[in-house]
Amino acid sequence: MTTQQDLFDSVKEQTLLSEIAALSGWDALTGMPKDAGHFRADVDAYLAQKIFTVSTGEQRQSILKALSSDTSQLDELGQLVLKKAQKDYDMTGKIPEQDFIAFEKTLSQAQDYWAQAREANDYKIFQPYLEKIIGYLKQFIPLWQTNEATPYDVLLNQYEPGLTVAKLDAVFAQVKTGVTELRQRLAKEGTTPEDSFLKRRVTKEQQRQYAMSAVQRLGYNLNKGRLDDTIHPFMEALNRDDARITTRWDDHNFQMAVLGIFHEAGHGLFEQNVDPKYDDFRSVLPISMSIHESQSLFNEVMVGRSKAFWETEYPQMQQAFEGVLDDVDFETFYAGWLKTQASFTRTEADPLTYPLHIIIRYEIEKAIFNDNIDVADLPALWNAKYKEYLDLDTPDDLTGILQDIHWAGGSFGYFPSYALGHLYAAQFQATMAKSLDFEAIFQSGDYSPIFEWRKEHIWQYGGAVDPQVILKQATGESLNPQYWLDLQTKQYLKAYGIDD
Amino acid sequence: MTTQQDLFDSVKEQTLLSEIAALSGWDALTGMPKDAGHFRADVDAYLAQKIFTVSTGEQRQSILKALSSDTSQLDELGQLVLKKAQKDYDMTGKIPEQDFIAFEKTLSQAQDYWAQAREANDYKIFQPYLEKIIGYLKQFIPLWQTNEATPYDVLLNQYEPGLTVAKLDAVFAQVKTGVTELRQRLAKEGTTPEDSFLKRRVTKEQQRQYAMSAVQRLGYNLNKGRLDDTIHPFMEALNRDDARITTRWDDHNFQMAVLGIFHEAGHGLFEQNVDPKYDDFRSVLPISMSIHESQSLFNEVMVGRSKAFWETEYPQMQQAFEGVLDDVDFETFYAGWLKTQASFTRTEADPLTYPLHIIIRYEIEKAIFNDNIDVADLPALWNAKYKEYLDLDTPDDLTGILQDIHWAGGSFGYFPSYALGHLYAAQFQATMAKSLDFEAIFQSGDYSPIFEWRKEHIWQYGGAVDPQVILKQATGESLNPQYWLDLQTKQYLKAYGIDD
Repeated sequence: MTTQQDLFDSVKEQTLLSEIAALSGWDALTGMPKDAGHFRADVDAYLAQKIFTVSTGEQRQSILKALSSDTSQLDELGQLVLKKAQKDYDMTGKIPEQDFIAFEKTLSQAQDYWAQAREANDYKIFQPYLEKIIGYLKQFIPLWQTNEATPYDVLLNQYEPGLTVAKLDAVFAQVKTGVTELRQRLAKEGTTPEDSFLKRRVTKEQQRQYAMSAVQRLGYNLNKGRLDDTIHPFMEALNRDDARITTRWDDHNFQMAVLGIFHEAGHGLFEQNVDPKYDDFRSVLPISMSIHESQSLFNEVMVGRSKAFWETEYPQMQQAFEGVLDDVDFETFYAGWLKTQASFTRTEADPLTYPLHIIIRYEIEKAIFNDNIDVADLPALWNAKYKEYLDLDTPDDLTGILQDIHWAGGSFGYFPSYALGHLYAAQFQATMAKSLDFEAIFQSGDYSPIFEWRKEHIWQYGGAVDPQVILKQATGESLNPQYWLDLQTKQYLKAYGIDD
Repeated sequence: MTTQQDLFDSVKEQTLLSEIAALSGWDALTGMPKDAGHFRADVDAYLAQKIFTVSTGEQRQSILKALSSDTSQLDELGQLVLKKAQKDYDMTGKIPEQDFIAFEKTLSQAQDYWAQAREANDYKIFQPYLEKIIGYLKQFIPLWQTNEATPYDVLLNQYEPGLTVAKLDAVFAQVKTGVTELRQRLAKEGTTPEDSFLKRRVTKEQQRQYAMSAVQRLGYNLNKGRLDDTIHPFMEALNRDDARITTRWDDHNFQMAVLGIFHEAGHGLFEQNVDPKYDDFRSVLPISMSIHESQSLFNEVMVGRSKAFWETEYPQMQQAFEGVLDDVDFETFYAGWLKTQASFTRTEADPLTYPLHIIIRYEIEKAIFNDNIDVADLPALWNAKYKEYLDLDTPDDLTGILQDIHWAGGSFGYFPSYALGHLYAAQFQATMAKSLDFEAIFQSGDYSPIFEWRKEHIWQYGGAVDPQVILKQATGESLNPQYWLDLQTKQYLKAYGIDD
C-alpha cells in the first residue's frame, strides 16, 4: 500500500540530493581549486544520476501511479506535492531514455563549442550544435505538449506556467512601443545626465560595506546567507536558511556591485522567506524564474533606482565611500544613477532598454520554433533586430548572438522570464503603493513594512503557487505592463529634466 | 560472477560519497550560514547512511565474500583494495547494528555534553557519557580483536596498524627521560631567550602574504588547494587535486598562523601528491594519522624550526611584515622562535614539551582499557600527571581533562599518533640529511629536492602502505626516537646558549 509518506520520503531524498548538488555547484563557482574540475565532474555526474533515478525511476513511477489513481488519502500538501512531482517527472520521463541521454550529452558538448566559438568570435563553430539542440527540442515538444497552441508555447510553459505566445505578443508590443517612444522623447527633449562620478575609484571594501548594510536593511539575513566573489554573480539557495549570493567587483564601477548585490539579495530574500512547510519538497517546488526575477529586480530597480530610497541612502553611501562622492550633490547623483544608454550586451543594459534585449530574443526563439527559420540565418536576424530596436550596428558574433550561454544550455523559452520579472516588479510596487507610503518608510530607516508585504504576498508561497496566480492574488489583476511603463516614464522624464 | 570491477565500482561510489561528505564538512566549518545547521544535519545524516550502506551493506558483503574466496582474478591493486575494504567493513560490520547505532547516538550526545561541561567547567557533566563510550568500546574490543596482546592494543591498531603497547611503552619511556633531562639542563644552564617581539602587531594580510608564499616554496600547490579562516585550523582533502587548508589569525601572535599554515600545508602536500592510481579508492585507503602528522610536523618543526631554513626565510618574512621586525637580528629572532615553556594546553605546546602531553594521555587511556580505572578518578589522575611531567598545577577541568574533544568523539588510541608524527618526522629528516644538503638547498631558494624526496619516499603511497612499512623502507629502520631527541637537544641547547 503506497502512502502519502512514501511520496514525501521520496521527494525529500530528491531534495537532499539537490541540496548537495547546489552546494557542489556553488563551491565550483566560488572557490574550488582550479585543478579539481575533473574530480568534481565525477561527483556531479554521480549526483545527477542519483537525482534522475530518484525523480524518474521505477519507485517514483509506482508511487505517482498509485497515488494518482486514489487521491483520497492525500491532504492538501500531499496533493500539491503529487502534482508537482508528476510535472517534474513528465519533463524527463516522457522522453525516451536514450534521447534524453543523447540530449544531455549534446548540451554538454554545445557549451564547450559555444565557448570555443566565442574564443574564435565565429558563430559557425557553434551553429551545428545549436542545430542539434533545436532538433532535439522540436522532437520533444510533441511529447510534452498537452493543450498549448503552438510549439513555442510548450517551451514558454515550462518556465512560466500558463504563459502563451498570444499573451506575450500583446505585452511585448505594448512595452516595445512605450520604450521606443520614451527613448525618442528623452533623446529629443532631455538633458543627458552627467555620470562620470560613477567611474570614480571606490575600494571593494567600501563598496561591500555599503551594499551589504543596505541589503540587510531590506531584510537579507546574513545568518542565512553569505557573500562571495565570482565572475558571474548569482544566488544559490541550498535551503531556506542558506541562500548565498555572489558579486563581481570593479574599483571603477561601484554601481555594478551595489546594484548587483541588491539584485542577488532580492533572490536571497525570496528563498529565505518561503514557508517552512515546503522545506522537504523544494526539489519539486522550484520557484518560477519570472517571479524570482521580479524579486531580485524589485530590489535592483524598484528600490535601487527609486528617488525616495536614495534620498535616505545616498548620505549613507557617501559616508561608506569615505569622501569619494562628497562633492556630488543628490540631484546630480540621482540623475547620473538613472542614465540610460543603448548597449550591445543584455547583462549590461539599464532597466529601460533591458526589455528590448529580451523582446529580440523572444522574437528569434519564436521564429525558430514556430516559423522554422534556418539556424544559419540567426546572426543576420539578430543583427537586424538590434539595428531596428536599439539602433546599434552589431560588429561581430561575440558582441551579438554568442553573448548568452542560454541556448547552448538548451534553455529556450527562458528569456521572457527576465522581462516578466521587470513587469511583475512594477505591478507589485504599484499595488504596494496603495497601502504603503514608500517615502515615509524610507525616511524612517525601518524598511520592514516592505519586507512584510513581500513576504506575505509573494515569498511565503515559494514554488507552491503558480506565478500568474501570485500576481493576480497580490495585485488584483493579471499581467499589465502599463505599470512598468508608467514608472519608467515618470522616473526617466524627471532624471532627464523633462516636465511632464 | 563477481569481478574485480564490481569491487572497484562499489569502492568508487563510497569514495564519491566520502568526497561529498568532506565538502559538506569543510563548508560547515568555514562559511556555512549560522542558521543552516539543522538542514546540514539532515544532509550529513543522509550521506552517513548512504556511506554505511555502500561500505557494509549486502552488496558489499557479497563482493567481499566472493572475491576473498577466489582471489585469482585480482591484480595487485585489486588485492590491496579488497584487503582495505575488508578492514573498513570489519570496523563496523563486526558490531551488531543496534549497538553501532546506539554508539553513534551516544557519541553525538557526548559531544554536546562535553561542550556543556566545558561551559560549566565541570567534568561531572561529561562523566556519564564518557563512561558510556568507554563501556561500548570495551564491549566492541573483543569483536575487533584478532591477535593483539591487550585491549588497548586493539584500539592503537585501528589508528596505527602494527603499533603495540609494548613498543610504545619503550619509546615513550625513552622520550620522557630525554625530554625531562633536556628541560632540566635548559633551566639550569641556559639563558631563556627574549621573545617579546613575537607579540608585535602584524596584520593578517602581512602574515598571510608571507606564510602562503613560504608554503608554496615548500611545494603546496594553490591550484589544488585554498586557504580559509576557521577557529580550529584543519586540512580537508576532497581529493588529490583539492586539499584545502584553514588557519586562525591573531594580530599579536604571528607565530601561530605562520606555523599553523606550515602545518596544515604539510597535510595538504601529502594529499596533493598521492599516486593517482589510488584516486578511486581513497575512502578505503585513508592515510594513517601518524604518517600524515609526520608530514605536517615536518613542515612545522623540521623546516619551521630549522635554523638553516630561517637564515634564508627570515629576511623574506621581515620584508612581508613591512618593517615590524627590522630591529630584531637573526640570532635574536631564531632563539625567541624556539623558546620552550610548559603549558597546560596540548594544542599550544611547543615541540619539546608536546610529546609529554601525549604521553600523559597515552598512560591514562592505557589505565582505562587495560587497568579498568574508574572514570570518576580520571581528573585526579590527569592533574597528578601534569604535576609530575610538566610541574604544572592544573587549576580546573576546563584547563585540564576537558580540553580535548577526542574522547567525546570515541577516539581512544588516537593521541599517540600525534607524538609518533614528531618522531617519524625527525627520523625522516635524519635520513634525508644523508643525501640532501639542507643548508645548501635552503640557501638556493629552490626547495624542490626536499619536495621530491618526500613525494618519492612517503606521499606517493597515500594510505596504500602501512606507516611502519613506509618508515622502514624510507629510513632503513623501525621507529627510533633517538633521532628526535638528538635533534631537539642540538637545537635547544644552541637556542639557550649552551655549548655542547
